[in-house]
Amino acid sequence: MHFKIGVCQLIVADNKESNLKNAERAIREAAANGSQLVVLPEMFNCPYENKAFPLYAEEYPGETTSMLSRLARELGIYLVGGSIPERDQGAIYNTSFIYDKNGHLIGRHRKIHLFDVEIEGGISFKESAGLGAGKQVTVVDTEFCRIGVAICYDMRFPELMRLMALAGAEVIIVPAAFNLTTGPVHWEITAKARALDNQVYFVAASPARNLQAAYHAYGHSCIIDPWGQVVNKLDEKEGILYGEIDLQYVQKVRRELPLLQHIRKDVYEIRRN
Amino acid sequence: MHFKIGVCQLIVADNKESNLKNAERAIREAAANGSQLVVLPEMFNCPYENKAFPLYAEEYPGETTSMLSRLARELGIYLVGGSIPERDQGAIYNTSFIYDKNGHLIGRHRKIHLFDVEIEGGISFKESAGLGAGKQVTVVDTEFCRIGVAICYDMRFPELMRLMALAGAEVIIVPAAFNLTTGPVHWEITAKARALDNQVYFVAASPARNLQAAYHAYGHSCIIDPWGQVVNKLDEKEGILYGEIDLQYVQKVRRELPLLQHIRKDVYEIRRN
Repeated sequence: MHFKIGVCQLIVADNKESNLKNAERAIREAAANGSQLVVLPEMFNCPYENKAFPLYAEEYPGETTSMLSRLARELGIYLVGGSIPERDQGAIYNTSFIYDKNGHLIGRHRKIHLFDVEIEGGISFKESAGLGAGKQVTVVDTEFCRIGVAICYDMRFPELMRLMALAGAEVIIVPAAFNLTTGPVHWEITAKARALDNQVYFVAASPARNLQAAYHAYGHSCIIDPWGQVVNKLDEKEGILYGEIDLQYVQKVRRELPLLQHIRKDVYEIRRN
Repeated sequence: MHFKIGVCQLIVADNKESNLKNAERAIREAAANGSQLVVLPEMFNCPYENKAFPLYAEEYPGETTSMLSRLARELGIYLVGGSIPERDQGAIYNTSFIYDKNGHLIGRHRKIHLFDVEIEGGISFKESAGLGAGKQVTVVDTEFCRIGVAICYDMRFPELMRLMALAGAEVIIVPAAFNLTTGPVHWEITAKARALDNQVYFVAASPARNLQAAYHAYGHSCIIDPWGQVVNKLDEKEGILYGEIDLQYVQKVRRELPLLQHIRKDVYEIRRN
């Protein structure tokens, strides 16, 4: 079975209404071009800054999630809604809302690993100062296959990626905003290794680079196949990335190089706590 | 603290005596050039073929391990003795013997994951037809730092690599013989991802390519730093790869991007069984 993915690499501005309009425009274009599953980037409705998160945060359901549901239903597409700041009981989470083609919410991933780094001569960020952390591994069922969803820094942790594969994911989708320090050296290697180790299609969806914003996203959204090779990728500019997902190829790779069967559960095991 | 590693990328022939002589020559050259730790490739004394393993296998101590011990002591070097077929109680293992600079055995790693693959139009191999599988995660202490050792296909499994880092390894050394199907697409990505995810120096030590042999090794021994960048690498020909290990740099990377501290043990955990 084949299906087509469209990844919307969006410029994110400091204006929620224009961000939502831009997302709607791109989702419609991706669907018009045959995408059966559309992916948005991390924090697509909000600048990636701690001070912006409380100003842009919404409870569920809210303005952004209602738009996502409406568009998924109208266009008949699965929609992985990047992420937005979600307010819940006094805390704010970096959350991805996932819709089926009837507009029903089929998953909600709250970023598990918060990005707290301080690199000499490079990026500093302390996400935990403004955000709460999720605790759930997220896989959703679609008519095509089971799909794992995580957010940005989550992809740094091979344990989480493996748990999604072991839970049956054949595709892993990660809305993510790497930056100009980590992006050039770590983005594509990490995406390829996750695809290769877990024999999944790995989809990394970045915002486009906006040099007017405080945080400069790396861009370079990419789709990697289960053999670790690039299906398609973008540069740093706004655009839509398309790729064909071939689930027979997942099975072929898993049959020929049976990594997941060769995991030595008698020696080690990743358990959920 | 700094120390220098020398990786001997050796041609392996179908003749144990000449393989041992060639290894001794290369170990002496690496030590003469200042290597404080010398690494040999997987199956450096034996062709990488199931039919060769029982013919070349030795019990410990044997001809090959005695040579390794003697050279480590004489040259005052740590020596990760690649791997050899080890016979023990009726079984044969793919085993790495590790010596300190007094010639004492400080570790013995038996390959945990056996290479059983059948790739259409590419490599087929069934290591489990001739070899037994190890069960122990191997880390050894040196005067420089703690070092993890695994063999070839073991490096495909992020769980094992993580367990070595969590056990305190700052360097991971993997004697390995990838091939012309998997090498070009998987070798360097995997080495880089293991270094990056675990913030260790990752040393992958391959045999040189011998087109007279049944199994064509990929070569391309490499040393990757904890930021995921190549310190040094070879092509497919016989040679010695040198690299400086900077343990302060390991600490700097781990402080600035604290991945190992950000592991969510409350959500998941890799346990030894």
